Amino acid sequence: MRGVIMRTAGDVRMEERDDPKIIDSTDAIIRLTATCICGSDLWPYRGIEPVDHTAMGHEYAGVIEEVGDDVRNVKVGDFVVGSFVISDNTCEICRAGYQSGCVHREFVAQTVGTQAEKARIPHADGTLVPTPGQPDPELIPSLLAASDVLGTGWFGAVAAEAGPGKTVAVVGDGAVGLMAVLAAEQLGAERIIAMSRHPERQKLARFYGATDIVEERGDAGVAKIKELTGGLGAHSVVEAVGTQESTMQAIGATRPGGHMGFVGVNYDVTIQGIDLFFAGIHLHGGPAPVRRFLPDLIQLIWEGKIDPGKVFDLTLPLDQAAEGYKAMDERRATKVLLTL
Amino acid sequence: MRGVIMRTAGDVRMEERDDPKIIDSTDAIIRLTATCICGSDLWPYRGIEPVDHTAMGHEYAGVIEEVGDDVRNVKVGDFVVGSFVISDNTCEICRAGYQSGCVHREFVAQTVGTQAEKARIPHADGTLVPTPGQPDPELIPSLLAASDVLGTGWFGAVAAEAGPGKTVAVVGDGAVGLMAVLAAEQLGAERIIAMSRHPERQKLARFYGATDIVEERGDAGVAKIKELTGGLGAHSVVEAVGTQESTMQAIGATRPGGHMGFVGVNYDVTIQGIDLFFAGIHLHGGPAPVRRFLPDLIQLIWEGKIDPGKVFDLTLPLDQAAEGYKAMDERRATKVLLTL
Repeated sequence: MRGVIMRTAGDVRMEERDDPKIIDSTDAIIRLTATCICGSDLWPYRGIEPVDHTAMGHEYAGVIEEVGDDVRNVKVGDFVVGSFVISDNTCEICRAGYQSGCVHREFVAQTVGTQAEKARIPHADGTLVPTPGQPDPELIPSLLAASDVLGTGWFGAVAAEAGPGKTVAVVGDGAVGLMAVLAAEQLGAERIIAMSRHPERQKLARFYGATDIVEERGDAGVAKIKELTGGLGAHSVVEAVGTQESTMQAIGATRPGGHMGFVGVNYDVTIQGIDLFFAGIHLHGGPAPVRRFLPDLIQLIWEGKIDPGKVFDLTLPLDQAAEGYKAMDERRATKVLLTL
Repeated sequence: MRGVIMRTAGDVRMEERDDPKIIDSTDAIIRLTATCICGSDLWPYRGIEPVDHTAMGHEYAGVIEEVGDDVRNVKVGDFVVGSFVISDNTCEICRAGYQSGCVHREFVAQTVGTQAEKARIPHADGTLVPTPGQPDPELIPSLLAASDVLGTGWFGAVAAEAGPGKTVAVVGDGAVGLMAVLAAEQLGAERIIAMSRHPERQKLARFYGATDIVEERGDAGVAKIKELTGGLGAHSVVEAVGTQESTMQAIGATRPGGHMGFVGVNYDVTIQGIDLFFAGIHLHGGPAPVRRFLPDLIQLIWEGKIDPGKVFDLTLPLDQAAEGYKAMDERRATKVLLTL
């Protein structure tokens, strides 16, 4: 089969890979309908993470072609969406809603690579969720988004305890930040402040429910959020970037006793304990337990209540994945959908 | 009046200070019945924090001698306990239960200094809580403990979401750690693991409700907690020390999705964002909103349901405060009560 391989930083190619096979009785093989490129795929692309002829991709939606003998919840022919983290969904950590910390967790990015025609998904019963039927083509981008970017933005908003009566600030206008805006709106937040400098993304943020836009960053961004919240700071802040500046901006923008959800993967971020101590906030984040939210997210998409697929602003055939990486690296695209 | 002054690091003296006077109409003047020395008083004593002829002390219980014209909730003659943070208890932050982040907050340690015969307490209505009547002398140590060390340990356990069905690990066997054990027990935790190497403190931890003792520290301590929890880590971990090692020990001992409450003041602690990201835990802490808990804590003490006063293992007259500091600095005492 064909699959995307990153040979070294910046060198992305479509190559022939072996077709995946059932290895464990809990595996499923899916034929991808669509996949995409994640902001986190840019780290190896930019040389921040090591890479060596790596099979890329961890977001996926498609049709089951084969299942192992012990798979019960999905069957051949089902259209499924899966989390970017493999989970058994039965261990104590999973049952508490933290499937991204499952005792059997694997990161799809490390062990599978879904920018390909097919993929072997371990722990299929615990990782995949079937849609109510075969989806219309226009639903595919949204269903694919649920696999990571929507689920991650949603988790950011849940971790920040967005909800009725709350003012929610979202740091970051990338795909995950925009999905956190969508989630905050769905969770009933009273006011949603998107921190963004890009006119196109501001427009999308407003489409997803942002009531205010703040263009300032860093200390000026914190000051602006305080100005908008009677000097107190936001109840809920979602950090969806992962830099030192954005992290400190998010901590500073959260009121004492408020909640900050962080979903930006924050390599090279250092937090001084004493800053956190005197902030007096709640902090929660990490790799999103997308599996917890998938059934509800699929239902919302199926019923047309949310339209997360709009975060894809460039669609290319899988063969042109290299161009997709380049477009995201150069910030010409927010998020690239790859069709098969 | 007499009051404790720290002239420079290590130089503690009893000196004559001006009697406090009502300045604002919301002030109260209290005559101290008892005060004490806090672990945090050792930072300036050891030269970690700057100090220059500073009036010391932030824990206090005593009788109201005078109130300003706008004080409504307490009156002359009342026996009161107050938080180590001044709060109006009416602002939006206070109403949310975060009185230590009050828009009018002052740290008693910085502006009052309660190791003295009298103290002026600003925002008396929002800071002080009267006891149901004049307390018996044997209740004084426990009521005094509520002012900080009990309230802080209690907040640590609440922040860690200690409760029924939970395994709670407490990092630190100082007075605050021991109070966190007491709180976890009161909050209904199923299992309470005290991390302690000191036989006397282990004994007290067991008295307060610890079901297990772990002597290992650092990575070995984390491994031991995992061993005791089926490889998962504790549901709830209270960090009550504030060093780099204890902080990383607490993060490592918390299961994915679990809760870590941190109340050890953590100067010089640095947390790598990516460690926190992949831990996937909830983190909450800071200066405890003791005022939130004071009415309930006073009631529990009044009814004899808890006995936090046992954390005081040395009692001295105020005049011998210097010896009290020395005893705590040399770890001959866990916590020193000063009588008046």
